[in-house]
Amino acid sequence: MKTVTLTELSEYLAQHGFPNQIDGKADLQLIGANTLQEAGEGEISFLANIKYRDQLFETAATVVIVAPDETIPEGLTVLRCENPYGAIAAAIRFIHGVRQHPQWGLDPRSEIAESAQIGKNANIGPFVTIDVNVKIGENATIYPGCFIGSGVVIGDDVTLYPNVVVYDGSRLGNRVALHAGTVIGQDGLGYAPVEGRWMKIPQAGRAQVEDDVEMGALCAIDRATLGETRVGMGTKFSDQVVLGHGTKVGKHNMYVAQVGLAGSVDVGDHVTMGGQVGVAGHLSIGDNVTIGAKTGVWADIPSNERYFGNPAFKWKQYWRQIAAIKELPDIIRKFRKMEKELENLRGKLEKHDG
Amino acid sequence: MKTVTLTELSEYLAQHGFPNQIDGKADLQLIGANTLQEAGEGEISFLANIKYRDQLFETAATVVIVAPDETIPEGLTVLRCENPYGAIAAAIRFIHGVRQHPQWGLDPRSEIAESAQIGKNANIGPFVTIDVNVKIGENATIYPGCFIGSGVVIGDDVTLYPNVVVYDGSRLGNRVALHAGTVIGQDGLGYAPVEGRWMKIPQAGRAQVEDDVEMGALCAIDRATLGETRVGMGTKFSDQVVLGHGTKVGKHNMYVAQVGLAGSVDVGDHVTMGGQVGVAGHLSIGDNVTIGAKTGVWADIPSNERYFGNPAFKWKQYWRQIAAIKELPDIIRKFRKMEKELENLRGKLEKHDG
Amino acid sequence: MKTVTLTELSEYLAQHGFPNQIDGKADLQLIGANTLQEAGEGEISFLANIKYRDQLFETAATVVIVAPDETIPEGLTVLRCENPYGAIAAAIRFIHGVRQHPQWGLDPRSEIAESAQIGKNANIGPFVTIDVNVKIGENATIYPGCFIGSGVVIGDDVTLYPNVVVYDGSRLGNRVALHAGTVIGQDGLGYAPVEGRWMKIPQAGRAQVEDDVEMGALCAIDRATLGETRVGMGTKFSDQVVLGHGTKVGKHNMYVAQVGLAGSVDVGDHVTMGGQVGVAGHLSIGDNVTIGAKTGVWADIPSNERYFGNPAFKWKQYWRQIAAIKELPDIIRKFRKMEKELENLRGKLEKHDG
Repeated sequence: MKTVTLTELSEYLAQHGFPNQIDGKADLQLIGANTLQEAGEGEISFLANIKYRDQLFETAATVVIVAPDETIPEGLTVLRCENPYGAIAAAIRFIHGVRQHPQWGLDPRSEIAESAQIGKNANIGPFVTIDVNVKIGENATIYPGCFIGSGVVIGDDVTLYPNVVVYDGSRLGNRVALHAGTVIGQDGLGYAPVEGRWMKIPQAGRAQVEDDVEMGALCAIDRATLGETRVGMGTKFSDQVVLGHGTKVGKHNMYVAQVGLAGSVDVGDHVTMGGQVGVAGHLSIGDNVTIGAKTGVWADIPSNERYFGNPAFKWKQYWRQIAAIKELPDIIRKFRKMEKELENLRGKLEKHDG
Repeated sequence: MKTVTLTELSEYLAQHGFPNQIDGKADLQLIGANTLQEAGEGEISFLANIKYRDQLFETAATVVIVAPDETIPEGLTVLRCENPYGAIAAAIRFIHGVRQHPQWGLDPRSEIAESAQIGKNANIGPFVTIDVNVKIGENATIYPGCFIGSGVVIGDDVTLYPNVVVYDGSRLGNRVALHAGTVIGQDGLGYAPVEGRWMKIPQAGRAQVEDDVEMGALCAIDRATLGETRVGMGTKFSDQVVLGHGTKVGKHNMYVAQVGLAGSVDVGDHVTMGGQVGVAGHLSIGDNVTIGAKTGVWADIPSNERYFGNPAFKWKQYWRQIAAIKELPDIIRKFRKMEKELENLRGKLEKHDG
Repeated sequence: MKTVTLTELSEYLAQHGFPNQIDGKADLQLIGANTLQEAGEGEISFLANIKYRDQLFETAATVVIVAPDETIPEGLTVLRCENPYGAIAAAIRFIHGVRQHPQWGLDPRSEIAESAQIGKNANIGPFVTIDVNVKIGENATIYPGCFIGSGVVIGDDVTLYPNVVVYDGSRLGNRVALHAGTVIGQDGLGYAPVEGRWMKIPQAGRAQVEDDVEMGALCAIDRATLGETRVGMGTKFSDQVVLGHGTKVGKHNMYVAQVGLAGSVDVGDHVTMGGQVGVAGHLSIGDNVTIGAKTGVWADIPSNERYFGNPAFKWKQYWRQIAAIKELPDIIRKFRKMEKELENLRGKLEKHDG
């Protein structure tokens, strides 16, 4: 963490994809970033979600990153920018830096097989196990408690946090980061029913994680029965995401915590899934799809759609149904009255006829 | 485990917040506690859930803890008490004791940084990694495979079961217990969308767990982007609970397994959540709230409420809607008949007019 | 992996419960198995799901295992068999073999208590901790990072993948396999509410896993408060399955990922649960029950049923309700029109009377 001036920050942001304008005092000193509610003197904050607009008028932050047309309180210096959420990310990186990993070199208390080939500048902690014929690229950071099985191939600049397990034959691309306890390549749920028992089908395929994927803690990516289970480049998972065997996730997907995809699901690119979504097996999901939290997907979803609910419906239809369900107890009550009234009318009419 | 007399147990319970009365033979010998169904001679059991009342009349237990006004079978000695569930807890503690941890002292096969300050009477197993500038209080029990990152601060009487991971900068209070594989302080799901890719926002905040919190196995508590993610004092989690970055849980909450809270959720005190509940981000939940299992929370919930369903509704309204949904197929069938009948009536009436 | 002829494979399959007939060239050479879509020369595939029938006519596989009456493309050699899914499993085993574990013997970097009794031919990796009075049968394979608590009893031919944790007093039967990070025997969610706080009830029972059980990664099986939590013989779990304290699962069950059973649930034999199912506590489920993914079980389910939805309904009734809910917005609109029309009719009739 260092002290920067607002001008220095403004220049850094401009150089990193965030053109901006200072509206106020350019020479302010910044020592950190914080939320609008918790920021104090010397700290920069941001407003990206209109839900928090009130806090803009009460904040003690020294500078706030806001949208170009945002109304601001008198006397507050702001940095105007099209993408405040992206800009604060870059600002945090500039002021706070990124995590500094412990430096172990190749700790002698790890077990690294002779046939393992490990690239330059490896940083491997104690109590790590690396099995035979593993290939690891350059600049690897591997925290204590990790296990890397035989024949695993790992790219450059990979970070494995504590107790990550990568089963035999798995592949990780460049710049992959896996948080603590995540497991890659365990056996998929492969059993055939034979005379009332479950006979194990050896899971002879593998798990493959492509470049720039980052996963949270305690995720589980099953290896395939045959072929591969794949996570496409640039995809990000939160904690406890599970992929079944043979499932293929496209590029730049984003899954919130506790999402579960069964086996043999094919997902396109730029798909977002909210927390606790479930997707049944052997389905196909297109590109640019948004699936709301807790949704249950039971049928294919085409590209460019937004789905919600269990079973999943198109967004509008789902909320129309929920609105209808809220009214339903009332409607049923009125319906019953109507049944009686109709009987009445029928009676009167028959009297007429008679 | 020891042999106690019912009198000794009765006195122990009275001294520990459970006034009680022996109704039967006071000098009975007890060697253990068990369920009504599985108890045998010398064992004490309890009845706290009316669902099991029948088992009271069939049990082979020597003594049963019951409510003051409970009807009992002839010849069975009971211990009458206002809170049988609380009393059996204390009885188990008295007779069975609590878990005896292995005694390692400071196992030389652990990696403890020189700058780490560890209090008296520490009990740290092999294959533990403690990084620089960590501060741990007295009477710590740390099982094999745990990792404690730089700058972590831990209170007194803390128990970390095997393979628990506490990331850099996290804080644990006094008497915190974390079961196996739980992860505290991993990076939150912080990414900004920039030109179709997900740009990482360094998670510069921390995770803080307050006094007397206990968590089950494989929980995941994300650190905050800025500021902190917090678990309030006395709160208890079952297994696989996930908290997103910046979420703050109040005091004495109880979450059953697989609950997931997204980021920036504010929860009050004395809140109970059933299994697999999901709470969307940036919401506020009051005090004394009960949220039924599998509920999906999409809007703020005020204090003293009971909610259920997805999307969440007040308890009564939810069940009213379910009852209505059960009738709906029938109602729709009758509605269609009614449409035809109305057409009929309309026809007759027009003939009249004509 | 070896090269086999189709004749050799056919004989192997016949000997292992899969009578079959070669329909085409018997002397073809096979080097591997793969999916219809990805198979190439020398590879055998299978068709078990009609969804993929089209792929049968486009595959480059050398041989395909199909049902006896399946229509096939001209020139393709097939192996006809009643159970293609079971047969490909056996074929994979024959051609690809099963996972070869690393061979450690008894690695000196593990901590094995003197009082632990370990059977012949044990294969125990580095960084494993085995506590006092543990009994392990023959041919155990225990990967690095595992922890086995005091008094645990384990059968023969057990495989524990990396970082598995088995708490004190737990029991594992013969041929049990637990994938990475799974936790057996942690404390159940046992707390009694006392004056607004949660008082811990020592979990004095145990967890017991019977013969031939296999679990995926990151499962959590709580020990019981009193008595036992049990997983019946031959049962298979995918990843992240949670069982609450005192729950008893029968034989030959199959649970997909992220299933959660609360405490004191009794489940019969041959029960299948889809992903993310939740079962409330103190319930009873019979034999031969199928519970669809994401179902919420709130009441007992008798044997031989198929349930779905939240709350759970019988399969047919659930889909009838969903169909009704889809129509509901329309029905409500028509109902409102009908209310107006009825008013109209009422008006006309009164004019008549008047």
